[in-house]
Amino acid sequence: MAIYLGIDVGGTTIKIGLVSEKFELLDKTSINTRADSEAPDQITQRMMLSCEKFLAENNLNFMDVLAIGLGAPGTILNKSGMYTFTGNLPFRDYPLREKMRKFYSGQIYFGNDANVAALAENRLGAGQGTANTVMITLGTGLGTGVIINNRIYSGFNEAGVEFGHIVIEIDGEYCTCGRNGCWEAYVSASGLIRQTKAAINDNPDSILAQVAEEQGKVNGETVFLAVDRNCPVADRVFARYAYYIQVGMANLINAFMPEMIIMGGGIGYAGERLINSFKQGALDEAMLFGVPMPDFKTAVLGNDAGILGAAILASDCLADGKVY
Amino acid sequence: MAIYLGIDVGGTTIKIGLVSEKFELLDKTSINTRADSEAPDQITQRMMLSCEKFLAENNLNFMDVLAIGLGAPGTILNKSGMYTFTGNLPFRDYPLREKMRKFYSGQIYFGNDANVAALAENRLGAGQGTANTVMITLGTGLGTGVIINNRIYSGFNEAGVEFGHIVIEIDGEYCTCGRNGCWEAYVSASGLIRQTKAAINDNPDSILAQVAEEQGKVNGETVFLAVDRNCPVADRVFARYAYYIQVGMANLINAFMPEMIIMGGGIGYAGERLINSFKQGALDEAMLFGVPMPDFKTAVLGNDAGILGAAILASDCLADGKVY
Repeated sequence: MAIYLGIDVGGTTIKIGLVSEKFELLDKTSINTRADSEAPDQITQRMMLSCEKFLAENNLNFMDVLAIGLGAPGTILNKSGMYTFTGNLPFRDYPLREKMRKFYSGQIYFGNDANVAALAENRLGAGQGTANTVMITLGTGLGTGVIINNRIYSGFNEAGVEFGHIVIEIDGEYCTCGRNGCWEAYVSASGLIRQTKAAINDNPDSILAQVAEEQGKVNGETVFLAVDRNCPVADRVFARYAYYIQVGMANLINAFMPEMIIMGGGIGYAGERLINSFKQGALDEAMLFGVPMPDFKTAVLGNDAGILGAAILASDCLADGKVY
Repeated sequence: MAIYLGIDVGGTTIKIGLVSEKFELLDKTSINTRADSEAPDQITQRMMLSCEKFLAENNLNFMDVLAIGLGAPGTILNKSGMYTFTGNLPFRDYPLREKMRKFYSGQIYFGNDANVAALAENRLGAGQGTANTVMITLGTGLGTGVIINNRIYSGFNEAGVEFGHIVIEIDGEYCTCGRNGCWEAYVSASGLIRQTKAAINDNPDSILAQVAEEQGKVNGETVFLAVDRNCPVADRVFARYAYYIQVGMANLINAFMPEMIIMGGGIGYAGERLINSFKQGALDEAMLFGVPMPDFKTAVLGNDAGILGAAILASDCLADGKVY
């Protein structure tokens, strides 16, 4: 039986999936990453042995694997096979492909996690039928994956696309990337929480403040809960937050003119409601004169996007005889 | 003899060139556009008759033309052949290809002027040898052309790339596109002139003010002339202007990760000096960890870029059997 092995490396868990040639997810498992306690060699070895064991549980072995696709955070290079840099894992200038080859001698392909998730949504999810898709993953940060002509686009150095780190407010809020005023600093869950806390601080008697007290904390949901209880302070926070998204989305349209923009990630529960809050404004702001308009959808593949996207990437690279 | 006809439609003149299959510019001519006095049908007819006459002067006729490539400002669609929208010319939802076909029955291809200029610089100019090139044309406005894998990238609706209309200052300076805070509003010649005038207003006794008085006006050169005369006020204006460019360039890198960024246009006389003022800052700001860095160069093809790029576009479309 011929299958792809899709691997999704995260800060907490490493997900492994068996994916058919038609990109059906046949089975999946996961192991702890142990990013804080293990060295790259240990993590890699444990990951590959887990793959072998998982294949065996499915009455398969590495000979059945057409190729391995692996998605991971940070800068992971498909040309050289180097895992160059990431914030949450111990990999630094690490020859990951070479290390994995000790266990599996076939083709191994790498992609940034946001890029492979976008690829999965483009091929199997909310972007199906479109050739140019951008996926925005809103969580603690803001990940972006750009698909052009049904293939991952990552630029000449494989380090893109980092649309979260487009400055929308010169000399604005500090961003974890070191710049000031990045889109991510305003629209990530962290940004929304900061905006919510500031509003609570200025309006301690608001319903918003009361909701936060009931929750025992402020999180990305607080403002939405307070909006549902008709809090005018929360309305203002939400309206401004939606405006930050709108401005960045119009930027994104002017930059890539994608057919479909997909929103996923932890803040995805806001879903359609969030999209409706900025969609028309973003389309009005963008340079769209007498041409088809981009569309917006929420992601549909959820946690499987990473595994599936990694497998699709492996298939694309094998089929085209080149890396993306 | 087999040649391409490259046409560069501008607000004032229409340039026509005979371009060899190796993209040598064999001969060129130009006619007035008469954008204010003539209707689209008249302009189109005069343009095509001029092509015919120009060919005859070179002992050629339309039978010798492999294809026509035409670059023009605004939204001009290569799929449908429609000239949809532009600010400075009377074309609106105009079936330009159909009208041109009455004079020339071969293949006719269209591109946005900034896109075809970028294509020419990528293939023959400062971007030669790179597959991913972005060209920034700094003039009254800010034009951008993006080349991916040696082909024009204009998005699914052919309306891109409009990187000048990326907001870098939310609710900032008014931009001609209708948004506020676009990169163009800060770094175009118009933006620089506004910044220069404001500084003169605040510092009427400065050398900068004196230079402007000697010039009899403020233009894009004023601040550079005053910097050369050691004016501290001009130094500040220039430093801030360079910072605006830097922020937008880091945005551009994070969005496209191009191998080469080429600067052209009316403000190009500042050339290397301008590039040196922002280059290191832009590279430092961008998300480049352990990967090759984009490079910056000034454009080299000057006014011929439009004609040459239009011919290259025609050749690309013919060779690949599809439009870009």
